[in-house]
Amino acid sequence: MKRKEFRELVPVEEARRIINRLQIRPEKENSALENAYGKILAEDIVTEINVPPFSRATMDGYAVRAEDTYACSETEPVKLKLLGNIPAGSDVSFKVSAGEIVEIATGAPIPEGADAVVMVEYSSEENGTVLIFRPVAGGENVMKAGSDILKGGRVLRRGRKLGTREIGVLASIGKKEVPVLRLPVGIISTGNELVSPGGNLAPGKVYDANSYTLYTGVQECGAFSLLYGVVKDDETGIRKALETAVSECALILTSGSTSSGTGDVMYRIIDEVGETLAHGINIKPGKPVVIGIIKGVPIIGLPGNPSSALMIFNEFVAPFLRKALGAEAGVRRTETGILGTVLRSEGRQQLLPVGLVRGRVYPADRGSGAITSLSEADGFIEIPPETEYMEAGTAVEVTLFGEVEKPDLLIAGGFCPGLDVLEDLSGLRFRTLYTGSSGGFSAIAAGTADIAGVNMPSKRPENRRESLPGEIRYNAPTIENMGLSEVVLVKGYRREMGLLVQQDSPVSGLEALPGKRLINRNRGSGTRALLELKIEELAEKKGISKKEFTDSIPGYGSGAKSEVSVCEAVLSGKVDAGVGLRNCAERNGLKFVKFAEEEYDFLIRKEVLDVPEVRKFLKTLSSAEFASKLPAGLQVYERTGEIISY
Amino acid sequence: MKRKEFRELVPVEEARRIINRLQIRPEKENSALENAYGKILAEDIVTEINVPPFSRATMDGYAVRAEDTYACSETEPVKLKLLGNIPAGSDVSFKVSAGEIVEIATGAPIPEGADAVVMVEYSSEENGTVLIFRPVAGGENVMKAGSDILKGGRVLRRGRKLGTREIGVLASIGKKEVPVLRLPVGIISTGNELVSPGGNLAPGKVYDANSYTLYTGVQECGAFSLLYGVVKDDETGIRKALETAVSECALILTSGSTSSGTGDVMYRIIDEVGETLAHGINIKPGKPVVIGIIKGVPIIGLPGNPSSALMIFNEFVAPFLRKALGAEAGVRRTETGILGTVLRSEGRQQLLPVGLVRGRVYPADRGSGAITSLSEADGFIEIPPETEYMEAGTAVEVTLFGEVEKPDLLIAGGFCPGLDVLEDLSGLRFRTLYTGSSGGFSAIAAGTADIAGVNMPSKRPENRRESLPGEIRYNAPTIENMGLSEVVLVKGYRREMGLLVQQDSPVSGLEALPGKRLINRNRGSGTRALLELKIEELAEKKGISKKEFTDSIPGYGSGAKSEVSVCEAVLSGKVDAGVGLRNCAERNGLKFVKFAEEEYDFLIRKEVLDVPEVRKFLKTLSSAEFASKLPAGLQVYERTGEIISY
Repeated sequence: MKRKEFRELVPVEEARRIINRLQIRPEKENSALENAYGKILAEDIVTEINVPPFSRATMDGYAVRAEDTYACSETEPVKLKLLGNIPAGSDVSFKVSAGEIVEIATGAPIPEGADAVVMVEYSSEENGTVLIFRPVAGGENVMKAGSDILKGGRVLRRGRKLGTREIGVLASIGKKEVPVLRLPVGIISTGNELVSPGGNLAPGKVYDANSYTLYTGVQECGAFSLLYGVVKDDETGIRKALETAVSECALILTSGSTSSGTGDVMYRIIDEVGETLAHGINIKPGKPVVIGIIKGVPIIGLPGNPSSALMIFNEFVAPFLRKALGAEAGVRRTETGILGTVLRSEGRQQLLPVGLVRGRVYPADRGSGAITSLSEADGFIEIPPETEYMEAGTAVEVTLFGEVEKPDLLIAGGFCPGLDVLEDLSGLRFRTLYTGSSGGFSAIAAGTADIAGVNMPSKRPENRRESLPGEIRYNAPTIENMGLSEVVLVKGYRREMGLLVQQDSPVSGLEALPGKRLINRNRGSGTRALLELKIEELAEKKGISKKEFTDSIPGYGSGAKSEVSVCEAVLSGKVDAGVGLRNCAERNGLKFVKFAEEEYDFLIRKEVLDVPEVRKFLKTLSSAEFASKLPAGLQVYERTGEIISY
Repeated sequence: MKRKEFRELVPVEEARRIINRLQIRPEKENSALENAYGKILAEDIVTEINVPPFSRATMDGYAVRAEDTYACSETEPVKLKLLGNIPAGSDVSFKVSAGEIVEIATGAPIPEGADAVVMVEYSSEENGTVLIFRPVAGGENVMKAGSDILKGGRVLRRGRKLGTREIGVLASIGKKEVPVLRLPVGIISTGNELVSPGGNLAPGKVYDANSYTLYTGVQECGAFSLLYGVVKDDETGIRKALETAVSECALILTSGSTSSGTGDVMYRIIDEVGETLAHGINIKPGKPVVIGIIKGVPIIGLPGNPSSALMIFNEFVAPFLRKALGAEAGVRRTETGILGTVLRSEGRQQLLPVGLVRGRVYPADRGSGAITSLSEADGFIEIPPETEYMEAGTAVEVTLFGEVEKPDLLIAGGFCPGLDVLEDLSGLRFRTLYTGSSGGFSAIAAGTADIAGVNMPSKRPENRRESLPGEIRYNAPTIENMGLSEVVLVKGYRREMGLLVQQDSPVSGLEALPGKRLINRNRGSGTRALLELKIEELAEKKGISKKEFTDSIPGYGSGAKSEVSVCEAVLSGKVDAGVGLRNCAERNGLKFVKFAEEEYDFLIRKEVLDVPEVRKFLKTLSSAEFASKLPAGLQVYERTGEIISY
């Protein structure tokens, strides 16, 4: 007997219907025009004035009856009698008859009788007479009354989100205050594991991101967020938070505490003090979603995982908020992209977080973990239930996570501080996925990255004459072994690799490692592979087996995922030595014991070699400025920028 | 001798160089995370923690060694010993060995030894023993430490504009405060004709829109606006405003008072108290632009016309602001569109304001006035100096005026309150250009509108048998006369047309008009054409000429541009009668004396007949709800929705 029955998941369309039937009523308030940006208009705006309110001159010059100028020319100017001058903002009135003219400034009202303005450049004035050297047509250099906005018309519709242009239009019809909608949405994060940003991160705790992403998401819809912070996952705490929120909000969004686990109480409380309308939507990741009403106030419980919460918010809640605000269609930010890689779905309807780089869409999923990450996703795509397979090249619509600035290049592979320098100098925006070198080769093979930074060493290639036996070669042998084609390897720069030890450590080289506690890097990292080769060389020299040597080093099998973890372990004294770059040692005040100089290169798919962003990347790599700005231990050399084609 | 020499205009590229050499230094300040949205990051953000900080369960269930489950199945579950329970947020530690299992909640840390989580659905617990019915793979339902963000890496680069996702990332690494840039930009509108919104609009005055559009434009760039309001166009006022702004701002933007007219003093003051770097850029509308420095603070004077000011701001100032803030590329919002109509340029480099409707680009220019309007433009395109002609269908890049919500349909023609009903019910956004019926036919012919609302009457067509002599037909004859093809006429609804008079007026019909002061509608309006036909009928009946009749009506030749102007003239007693719709009379408390029932139809280009927005428009037109919501005097009839193809 299984402990728990599967819940009946609500179909997607049914969930939408349930949400759309929820009643929320925004309040109306007046906003000063300068604070109205991004808010939603509460009423139709009908203008009581024309814009411009009168026909006005668009140039400095002279107001005339156009017909008086028809016969004039550069050599035979017409002579007209000057009646006076109308400065901008003046209410001086003249009546211009045949043979008469009035000096006029840009923006001033055209006097009665006149129907055009001669630019000052084509005139000459003397003793009350003006000579005109060029004819004007009727209406020339005149902006007619009401030609921008005609009075009596509806200039903006209720529900319009106020942007730059709308604010300008409201100003130009004289509105100082505008009626906007106020829809207070309460945001509660629940979970015993959550700590608010700025708090102390005890073991087992994570920072609460949902409060902040939902806060901005709600604001972007034109509603008003109220943050209630983090609430513990217990009945008392949640009940109390809900009670406050119910009294202050038109809608409540919670995240976390909605799954079927033992510690999760949100849906039980809604059931007790209100009414549950749905629990679980049949779309991945909608299973934990709960929809209910407490004392007339709708409440929607979102998943705890940040990217899942944002997806469900965008898919179900944001359209509802916009509808409640009467906001017009088109606010949801979507962009069409092309799948950069094959996608397999489980044949269940799904929202899949994706990255969007130069119109290419790739799953924002490091492959290993079951849960995808907020930092890598620009938005998500919807995969229909019947789809199990989507080919690379398929056009898909991406719903963006708010107002996203999209990256220019997607770079996988091993971490290197040189990448930050490349990013800064090129002005490009990188999306970097530090997958280790092995992961970089795979990402290029799968088409999920544009560039991979790799430092994978190999020894004694068997079928190549050009390398000496025993010589370590970088990256090229891996490309050959994997049979990669349609790629190029661009030689990068050299990096000093060594042991990282405390300043007073006696460790002076690899031969001192036996008996010392080591923190190694993770499998798949080029650094680990290089250490292994160097140890193999050393063991050979010593006449012992590699295994014998490594077995004598406690922690040799460990695998830190980042250099920072390595440094921390050394600094804390938990281990006696780590492995990493000189730069890393120096930044952390550690001693660096060099054991090799390796080559860090860039593997690039041929397909993208000519896109402007990649060209810019390569240009920066070969620049003198880049060479001069590389941190200690990294150095360009004669092969930097060399391109090897496969 | 001409009064004024042409100034030497600065070439565009030289102007960019001058602006880019200006020195502005943003300040650094800390912002609470919840207020950081839209601001620019002042420093690189390097994370000191992994996200998640530990490997965590992504499902409720049991943490196991995956290999312990490999052999189990639905029918032959494996039995494992339950060690305990790890709730989310707990720091309880267990060590899981072969044959052991620990209950775990979503989000809780994976205990030592375990490498996967079995979902609770595939388990059953009894007396300290757990049965597992389905194998899991290593890593399944586990999110590894650092798999979202790896510690030590730069997660966000200095200069990043903070959006939803960035705020979420900062929260998830625990930042409560973030270092952002503060760049105060002062905004001054100058001109004697300007009144701040909310003020009284005396004759000759217009409302100041530039303060507000520039305010939002500056904010959108991530800088901070300071509004100094409207300043009179005199030395003392402008000097004083500049003095204050120089002491408070890093950059000053003014608008107006920069042309060469007699009343314009801005550039003279800059020359006196500071240094003028450029006056006039050789790009339309950049002629009035002035660039200078006062006491080390750069000042840029923009044109007074709102859409010109916005274009120059977007083209020259916004890129400079973003660069000063170190903001990364790609913030400028552009969109590619297809020219919907032929464009002729004057062969001078130009920024042309355009509308953007469903990817189609058309000039936002009503043709008549020399100056284009803010309310119709979504952005602008750049026309190179050598271009004199651009074909319809050419792809162009539109720089958007800030964050624009683009219209769904572009509708030209005669005004009708029924259009507001259609817009509300369809949920579509219309861009309406009330050009009169004639203008509507032209806009469709030129391809610059999708739909035109038209009510143009004609009588006695000569070559058509189906109409009776003397019968008035609507719109179809005009289509035939203009030789329009590739269009359809969709029959709309009937409108009661009549004279609008004061409640106590003795005027009871057209025959009472002689000797009464009339306000007529403008030429090109269907209403005027209909009145003319009806008067012709009446004159014929009376045995006099039409001219004789109309000459007897003072003001017959007048031409109000809108119904509202007509109503105002009647209400004020300036005239005795006007002409318009019943609806308009009723809304303004006037008496309505009906003289005809006309047909208001929709002329649509065939090309767009099948786009979803047009289909939705037509569906709404034929709906019962539309019929029921039409205001008094407008009525659907049996032909509503009928489509006549040409």
